[in-house]
Formats: sequence, C-alpha cells, structure tokens
Amino acid sequence: MSELRKDPVIGRWVIIATERGKRPTDFVSVEPSGEPISCPFCEGNEFMTPPEIYAVREDNSLANTSGWKIRVVPNKFPALRIEGTVEREGMGMFDKMSGIGAHEIIIETPEHSDLLHQRNSEGIVNLLETYQERLADLMRDFRLEYAMIFKNMGERAGASLSHPHTQIIATPIVPKRVREEIIGSLEYYNYKSRCVFCDIIREEKRFGSRIVHENASFISFCPYASRFPFEIWLMPKRHMTGYQTATQQEIIELSDCLGTTLKRLAISLGAPQYNYMLHTEPNKSVPRDPWPDIGEHYHWHFEIIPKLTRVAGFEWGTGFYINPTTPEDAAEFLREADVE
Amino acid sequence: MSELRKDPVIGRWVIIATERGKRPTDFVSVEPSGEPISCPFCEGNEFMTPPEIYAVREDNSLANTSGWKIRVVPNKFPALRIEGTVEREGMGMFDKMSGIGAHEIIIETPEHSDLLHQRNSEGIVNLLETYQERLADLMRDFRLEYAMIFKNMGERAGASLSHPHTQIIATPIVPKRVREEIIGSLEYYNYKSRCVFCDIIREEKRFGSRIVHENASFISFCPYASRFPFEIWLMPKRHMTGYQTATQQEIIELSDCLGTTLKRLAISLGAPQYNYMLHTEPNKSVPRDPWPDIGEHYHWHFEIIPKLTRVAGFEWGTGFYINPTTPEDAAEFLREADVE
Repeated sequence: MSELRKDPVIGRWVIIATERGKRPTDFVSVEPSGEPISCPFCEGNEFMTPPEIYAVREDNSLANTSGWKIRVVPNKFPALRIEGTVEREGMGMFDKMSGIGAHEIIIETPEHSDLLHQRNSEGIVNLLETYQERLADLMRDFRLEYAMIFKNMGERAGASLSHPHTQIIATPIVPKRVREEIIGSLEYYNYKSRCVFCDIIREEKRFGSRIVHENASFISFCPYASRFPFEIWLMPKRHMTGYQTATQQEIIELSDCLGTTLKRLAISLGAPQYNYMLHTEPNKSVPRDPWPDIGEHYHWHFEIIPKLTRVAGFEWGTGFYINPTTPEDAAEFLREADVE
Repeated sequence: MSELRKDPVIGRWVIIATERGKRPTDFVSVEPSGEPISCPFCEGNEFMTPPEIYAVREDNSLANTSGWKIRVVPNKFPALRIEGTVEREGMGMFDKMSGIGAHEIIIETPEHSDLLHQRNSEGIVNLLETYQERLADLMRDFRLEYAMIFKNMGERAGASLSHPHTQIIATPIVPKRVREEIIGSLEYYNYKSRCVFCDIIREEKRFGSRIVHENASFISFCPYASRFPFEIWLMPKRHMTGYQTATQQEIIELSDCLGTTLKRLAISLGAPQYNYMLHTEPNKSVPRDPWPDIGEHYHWHFEIIPKLTRVAGFEWGTGFYINPTTPEDAAEFLREADVE
C-alpha cells in the first residue's frame, strides 16, 4: 500500500506510491516507454480499464460497453486506494499515514483526438458536470478532506496517455498549496472584510489589460504575479466557495469561458501542452472541519499553466518563479487570436 | 528593468524578467533553439561573456583571457540587476518591488565536457570554494537578503547551455521555500531545543537504509519524505548554519561527499540530468535581520533532484508530490554502484 510521509522540516507531505511501483532499474533507460498500441481509453476498449464508477451514456447502453460520452474509472495504478482506515504512525522522528484516498480517471470523450478546445459546448458541459458529480460523491467519504481535479495535457505536462482525460485524487489531508490559499485569503478577509478573489476580479476588470475572456458569469485573465508565461486563472464572478454550487446555467457559461480560453491558447501558441487544476473548498462534511467559516473568504477557480518553459534549480530551491513574459503582453496576445 | 510581483492570495513573489525578454511570439515554435555554434563558456571565448567578477587562474594569466580554472561572470540576460535601489510600490491592490539583485554564472571548468562527477578533487574543491567567495562578497550588500546557488545540469533541468556551470541569484527578500525551512526548523527548535537537521542526521545514521555516502564530516542520503525518485540531501554532520563557515578541510571532505554522490547517481542511472541547490542562511549583515537567533536552528545543506519524472497537474495544484520509488530502494541502488 502507498504511504503518506511528512517532511520534518517544512511539514510537506509526499505520497510514496509503491503501487505505481518504479523499481530503481526502471530509470536506467530514460527514454519514455511510449503509447500503448491499443488505447485503453478509446471506445470499444472498455474491458481494458477497471469497471466504471460513473458515466454519461446513451439511454440504452450498458455499463462498460460502448455508447458512452464520458466515463469515470479508477486509476489502474492508483497513487492512493480507497480501502482501509487512515492510520497515523511514527517512525523514529518521522511521521507517516496510510495511503488512503481515491484516484480516478475521467475519460472525457470516446474519440482519441478530440481535444478539449475543439469540443462543442455540450461536450464541455458534460465534462464540467461530471466534475461536480464526482466531487459530490467523493465528499460523502469523511476520511477524505480534499479532492483535486486536474488535467495533464501532453507528455511535458505529465500525461502518459494522449487520449483526453482528467484525473481526480482525493487525499486524507488538505494539501499544502490549498491550505496556503485558504489561510492567505482568510488573513485578507480578517483585514479587509472582503474576499481577496472578488477583489482581484474587480481590479482585473478595472485594469482590463490582463483579461483573456469574459462572459456574464465568468472571467479568465493572466494573473498579476503569473509564475509562468501565459498562466491563466479562471473564476466565477459571483462569490462562490465550492465548485459544486455552480448552477446548470453557470456551468454552460463556464464551458464557454474555459473552452474559449483554451481555444485562444491553442490558436495563439500552436496548441501548447498544459495543466489545469480546479481549486475548490475542502470537504465540508468532515466532522473536524478546520475552516468552519470558509464560505466568506474562499472562492473556487481554475488555474491553467501552459508548459512553455522549464522549471529549473532556482525555482526548486526558492519557490520563487522567474517569468520571462509579462502577463499584460501574454493576455494581449491571447485576445488577438481569431477564435471565430 | 525586471520587477518583483507578489501574489495577493498566498504572498508568493515572482520575478517578471522583462530583460530576459520573451515576446509572446517566441513561444509559437516550441522547439528549443539549440546550442550556439560557439560556446561562450569555453576557454578562448572569454570575449563572449561580460567581464569576469572573479576567477581561479594561473598566476601569470590576465583577467578575461585564457588560463583560468573557474570564471564567474554576470549573466548576460539577468533576472535581476545590481544597479538601483529597492523601491516598493502598490498597483491598485497589488504589490511590486524593483528587480534589484544579482545574477551570476560560475563557469566551472574551461573544458566543455568536463562533468562535475568526472572531475578530480581539486576541481571540485575550487568550485566549492568559489561558492564561498561569491556568497561572502554578495552578502556585503545590505540590499540583498538571500543568495541561492543552484546548478541546472541538462536541458530537462532547465540548462540552456551544456557547458558545466552553476548560477547564483541574490534577491532582496528571503525566498518562500527558505523561509518555510527557517520557520519550520525554528518551531522544531522551540519544541525540542534541538536542530531538526541534526536530528535527521542522527535518525538517518540509526536507520542506515537511506544513506548514500558518508565520510568524517558529511553525509548524503535519500530523505525520508523524498519528493522525487533518487532525491538526495547532503549535510555537514556538525551543526553549521552558514555555508561560508565551512573550513578548508571540510570543503575537501565536502568535495568527496558531493563528488562521490554524483558519481553514484551517474553510474547507477546513466548520468541523469539533475538540479542541485545550496540552502544556507539568509544575509546576516542585513540591518533588520528578521532571524537573529537562526544560528541554533538552521543548518545548511545541498538538495539534489534528478530529472527522472515529470511534475504534473496534481503536484502543481496541491504542492503534494507523488514519488513512485521509495527512498530506501533508491539509496540501496545507489550504494551498489561501483565507484572505484
């Protein structure tokens, strides 16, 4: 079973994922192993994945057969497993926890080459609603404090299969980066009595120069302190703590904002590889909820980071990023893309 | 001039490095531009770099001519510049600071293909002493709160030139990651009255299973909560806050420990690309020293991270790492390498 281990200096947890099992000798050849001959995510190959957890399907189609639009399956080589209890233990001065959690794959489309920015509204809406469904289901499990939805598009972004897919990893602790956002936004709220994300949206609208796309309910922009060239954040304009509370109408508008933003990126830069991550509130149903008043100060959003530069020693050593392109230049370039 | 910008949510600073000047159109072709035909770091090409700041040279050789063993030059496209004053300013709700600092290149050897793990003791000692010299000099500047020494070895590690070199970037603030280490080790000290790094060394010696190399004064090991396969930390065994206080004899032993550790990595895994970062104390000569008692609880060390896996959306979104190889397996594999 996988194991969560805590760094004793800065308190950072890592997952030692023995079930993904890389033996040291696996690294001796650094060449990637390449795509499998037959894609396990393509329609007709349903038998190649573990049985589905959820699907968007034609009315008369059977689970684990063709006829689906979206399929959610457990990861075959999960970083964390759902079976067991959360055991905490010391190892001398070190701390560990059993690797309880969930690791799911959302197969976004039956078509191998149907990239997100090329999909129609219905396809993107189905995907965004599936995110809501899976979050709602996973958050019924009190052992899980957080679920991170993320997409690796392309090999440089960490994808091992090119068929469009999103992943969810649910963890028994709130991850460091999310915790920093919650604490940071709480400090801001305590000082200003306003949500920092709502204030950012107001400022971005006032400046205008960093906006990529906007509709009635959503806005995407290159953030003021972008870590990477063409980094983009996407937020609901109304204050909303958790992604699950977005209405059906809002999901339609989100599909426009996300789809158009990714289309602008693809047209401007020749379909770069990217990651996106959904940052939403921790599991509110956990009995020992450490952030009972999070509703006022946290605000869900997507972060999109194209893989255009390499992260080097300075960034690893300092947690400080060097970005060679101003977000104002990047946003202007994205706005110029002809998306019609 | 470059600009430091602060993220309003989590307080992370980034360097918007306009002088490294990537126009948006530079990213349209994602192919790397490749090595220049003539290497600016090779002996005989001294005219291709800015004038040297420091060098280890043969007695009768002149600055900026051949006859050197190590050369330190300003980065031609610096992320931060030494000229000017640290100006702090608001931009609406956002905060920025002028991009004051230093960005130097340490050209480690006149030979283009003389990799660190292949060098003799004298070559490595010269390099490690150069790190001390440059740190001592940069820390005379009260505007600079920190200097990070780091090495990018290979293109995947972020190096744009393959000639062996190290970089130093000095910043007007203590970077987030170092700050977290200082605060984390202070909390541990307040609780235990012991240095957390000294305790880690004791535990690693007791377990033994994660040790890679050890001599009288230094130890290298795969840390308990390794983020990456074959991540290695290297520490002085005696409590030492700042790298500059290492004695000449200690530098000789450090050259053995670093050289042998990198040799084990190269032999075991076929010379993988890597980053290493030197974590040492902040500038003690800064008048408003925020950590006056750091001497008791901070402990300098190197972190070595081979580039064997890709960082993906989950890591970016959570700050939580998935490592598919246990540090115990990695260390055992490294110890088996025949370094004679």
